[in-house]
Amino acid sequence: MNLILIDPQELAGDTVILRDRRADHLRKVLRSKTGDTVRIGLIDGPLGQGRVVEITRQEIILAVSFTGNVPDLPATDIVLALPRPIMLKRVLAQASSLGVARISIINAARVEKSYFHSSLVGEESFREFLLLGLEQAMDTRVPKISVHPRFRPFVEDVLPEISSNTPLRLVAHPGAAENLVAIVHPPLKTRAVLAIGPEGGWADFEIEKFIEQGFIPFSLGPRILRVDTAVPALMSQLALLRQLKEVLSFKC
Amino acid sequence: MNLILIDPQELAGDTVILRDRRADHLRKVLRSKTGDTVRIGLIDGPLGQGRVVEITRQEIILAVSFTGNVPDLPATDIVLALPRPIMLKRVLAQASSLGVARISIINAARVEKSYFHSSLVGEESFREFLLLGLEQAMDTRVPKISVHPRFRPFVEDVLPEISSNTPLRLVAHPGAAENLVAIVHPPLKTRAVLAIGPEGGWADFEIEKFIEQGFIPFSLGPRILRVDTAVPALMSQLALLRQLKEVLSFKC
Repeated sequence: MNLILIDPQELAGDTVILRDRRADHLRKVLRSKTGDTVRIGLIDGPLGQGRVVEITRQEIILAVSFTGNVPDLPATDIVLALPRPIMLKRVLAQASSLGVARISIINAARVEKSYFHSSLVGEESFREFLLLGLEQAMDTRVPKISVHPRFRPFVEDVLPEISSNTPLRLVAHPGAAENLVAIVHPPLKTRAVLAIGPEGGWADFEIEKFIEQGFIPFSLGPRILRVDTAVPALMSQLALLRQLKEVLSFKC
Repeated sequence: MNLILIDPQELAGDTVILRDRRADHLRKVLRSKTGDTVRIGLIDGPLGQGRVVEITRQEIILAVSFTGNVPDLPATDIVLALPRPIMLKRVLAQASSLGVARISIINAARVEKSYFHSSLVGEESFREFLLLGLEQAMDTRVPKISVHPRFRPFVEDVLPEISSNTPLRLVAHPGAAENLVAIVHPPLKTRAVLAIGPEGGWADFEIEKFIEQGFIPFSLGPRILRVDTAVPALMSQLALLRQLKEVLSFKC
């Protein structure tokens, strides 16, 4: 926890009372004392500082001020075929730590149907893992997240709407002819959406549906990656393609 | 398990008898029948095919032929401050699935000392997780791995030797002035070694020691990542920098 996230509803003037794992963190990891300051962030708002005003057995009272920036909304969205729920927890935290604006969790032919009935699959429990990633990365912008148990209504009705302002649409597909570098000429300057399939990959008809929506299939190369490796790998490759402009303008 | 890995010691002519989780995988996941062929690889050797000759309750007998390529040795090494052992398991599998030639697990000032006493920390148990990554990625080249409980002897005596043929030496450091793109001008054509610190980062004197050995500190940007996100993120960024040459020569 590199940042204490505070919900706007918790604010009472410039005071916040912490009782949960954030208080535990201040107590046990940071060993905070009265008068110490800690990094805080207002959920979906600015960064700031909290001064420890009082420590009791049950609670820690912070005097807060939010004078920092509001972090930028990340320029990448993800569409993710529902993985094993225990892995999904980790992937959500990874993705929010790397920076993602919207995560759509969807069904696909090769998704194990029982996964949708897991107690971990629901927008409430997702929020916990998304906040873990933000606390890690010192971000405040909670990714929008939604669950779509039916592939076709998602891809035909929802996807066109949520990707209308996203020119770069990519779908990872082991059978694709080209890799990311062949498709995305750096510098990448636009929003991007990245669709990542289930173990076993997307079915052919699913790839066709993505192509109908302007998605370009690309290959990750000969190595088949698990989703908790593929998500950070691809998100960070897109991040690098965004940073590359300086080098290119220098070399050309 | 996208590839059944076979140890050369298991070969009896062109026959292999499987009894462990590989047999379970054939039985339960692939539902193999007599006469089916499956993808196999000889550890540190070529890829090939196995034909199911016989299935009994205890064992599965394969007739094997190794007519494929020997995968290339990956061009990246890692130096990793020992993370929490439960996370190390995952990171080893991730790294070997992404392709790494050598992993040095080392101590650092901000490594929790008790981690070195975990039963998971040892070259024998590491091998299991490395093989999981290779099975996933369909590679056969087992990364060399070693554990170094003392920082200074490692960095002064071992590191110069193992990085002598590795021109690009990078150490991830939140305090560094430059990011990866500013240091590595694509295309990256040489071997690279990547040092990744503990939670809380490297101590100043550790960074100085790495610099003495020709390492360049670089920043991952404002986001602080957990090691199971940082390792796939950085390894895949290096992989992308290796692939970029076509685009650059096209654009320039």
